[in-house]
Amino acid sequence: MTVRRTDSVDDLVARAREGQARAVGRLISLVEDAQVGPGREQLREVMSRLAPHSGGAQVVGITGAPGVGKSTSTSALVGELRSRGLRVGVLAIDPSSPFSGGALLGDRIRMSEHATDPAVFIRSMAARGHLGGLSWATPQAVRVLDAAGYDVILVETVGVGQSEVEIAGRADSTIVLLAPGMGDGIQAAKAGILEIGDVYVVNKADRDGARQVRRDLRNMLSLAERPEGAWRPSVLMTTATDRTGTDEVVDALAAHFTHLTDSGELTRRRVRRTREEVEAIALTTLRERWGELGTDDVEELAAAVVAGETDPYAAADRLLAESGLKD
Amino acid sequence: MTVRRTDSVDDLVARAREGQARAVGRLISLVEDAQVGPGREQLREVMSRLAPHSGGAQVVGITGAPGVGKSTSTSALVGELRSRGLRVGVLAIDPSSPFSGGALLGDRIRMSEHATDPAVFIRSMAARGHLGGLSWATPQAVRVLDAAGYDVILVETVGVGQSEVEIAGRADSTIVLLAPGMGDGIQAAKAGILEIGDVYVVNKADRDGARQVRRDLRNMLSLAERPEGAWRPSVLMTTATDRTGTDEVVDALAAHFTHLTDSGELTRRRVRRTREEVEAIALTTLRERWGELGTDDVEELAAAVVAGETDPYAAADRLLAESGLKD
Repeated sequence: MTVRRTDSVDDLVARAREGQARAVGRLISLVEDAQVGPGREQLREVMSRLAPHSGGAQVVGITGAPGVGKSTSTSALVGELRSRGLRVGVLAIDPSSPFSGGALLGDRIRMSEHATDPAVFIRSMAARGHLGGLSWATPQAVRVLDAAGYDVILVETVGVGQSEVEIAGRADSTIVLLAPGMGDGIQAAKAGILEIGDVYVVNKADRDGARQVRRDLRNMLSLAERPEGAWRPSVLMTTATDRTGTDEVVDALAAHFTHLTDSGELTRRRVRRTREEVEAIALTTLRERWGELGTDDVEELAAAVVAGETDPYAAADRLLAESGLKD
Repeated sequence: MTVRRTDSVDDLVARAREGQARAVGRLISLVEDAQVGPGREQLREVMSRLAPHSGGAQVVGITGAPGVGKSTSTSALVGELRSRGLRVGVLAIDPSSPFSGGALLGDRIRMSEHATDPAVFIRSMAARGHLGGLSWATPQAVRVLDAAGYDVILVETVGVGQSEVEIAGRADSTIVLLAPGMGDGIQAAKAGILEIGDVYVVNKADRDGARQVRRDLRNMLSLAERPEGAWRPSVLMTTATDRTGTDEVVDALAAHFTHLTDSGELTRRRVRRTREEVEAIALTTLRERWGELGTDDVEELAAAVVAGETDPYAAADRLLAESGLKD
């Protein structure tokens, strides 16, 4: 996507900050499309313009196995946050789709009650390569929403494999959704999920077994050793279809954010994840430089290793030297 | 692991090349443990010493969903290869274990018929971080076995998510195992597996539905367009428990290797995967350098981004500049 002459990056950022959803959408598209190629310089300009306005939003990760009611819960959360006067951004990471954009039919339908609310911005993003995980464009899209002044940014992802852990690394607060009747899914998942949740929600509370899930979860969580003053994860119950219990989830999120701020943990978490983000960008830059070196150079090094003339470690040293890295 | 004074790297390499399993095992342990920290220099020495002796082995990846009979098939293959006088190395990648070593009980039992054969080397390796995927130490362990003179190296991994694709990228030849009665697993997996197999094996051929699986597979494979002279994947049937059909699998592997060699594809495949390996090592080296920069420097950059004083792209540029990378 290229920005039209009339849409300078400055204009787009200004309009996004005034709450114009179209400008927000165009900035996210620009971020998604411009990670490589000629749009890269524009991306840098966008990021540089957004920087002074960032850090205001609470980034909330929502994860859970397929079938626990993630979409419905997200929609219920949006409704509750709106009723408190907060502006809400939603990024739904779609692990099955190679396509991005705000127009996925499923999302439109399930979130339709918020579709016409100008204080709610909803976007589906493709997972691109990370199986079930977060797109590399996700952190940049979060930056756009943050600078555009959304108070809460919900990042919804399917809990498959490492994506749960990934989302916890990217969010200020993480909601882990569970539901009764998921068979041994909860047992199988428990090792992973016990580490990452700040707020646990047992959805479909009206079904048999919901209390049992809550009891099991509380027992498992009580075994974890936590340092003095650490956050103790909430375990709540909801029926997202009629929004029962959602107010308590929003209360818990607010309490967690206060805890993060007061304890200094908010800055520590953000510095940690920003560090990873900066390192990932630096590695991408370096890879691009290898691309510019010409395929032949890197290929020649690899061929020398295959021929037994050198080993991969010595070849890597030469690659770094040729990239302009001094010893 | 540190090498004892009496076990110089030269000694270990020499003894491994004489076929001493203990020396091979110690080299692999050294490779696994020494990727970071003080052992790194020893690792470099090992790789440098192994380089002139590499390239002789056929590296065979074996993948398939849980329950298709991977362990039994691997064991049957080892038996058949041994009966042809070939030396065989086996790396079993264990996605569930955070531990490495040759002593996993399950492997010992299933491979026990080969445990006392000095011409067979069996090792379990942890997947470490890559969920279901290949450990970063795997390519280096393959190098050790290759230089130690094993004729065929079998790398067995559970086909979960991307690991199938990963193993195909690392092997000269890839066996994809299937079995009847796996429900819709074959349907679900078909998109992925049709790209990667050089030899398809329908195991449990004595069960109902095996012929149907073969027919479906052949139909699906026949739809793929292949350039003139390209390898046409074999579709074979086995009953690994009594080794029925395993001789044909070994024949197909030999035919594929001949095809790779004659067509020049062998070198192309190896250069491609070695290139990835070299790049990955270069990135690790760079990350280590960031570690040496002192946590404070990188952390300070991340903190500046969090504070809105700079953006992640500008911070990445500064990180690369501070690492000694010239523009």
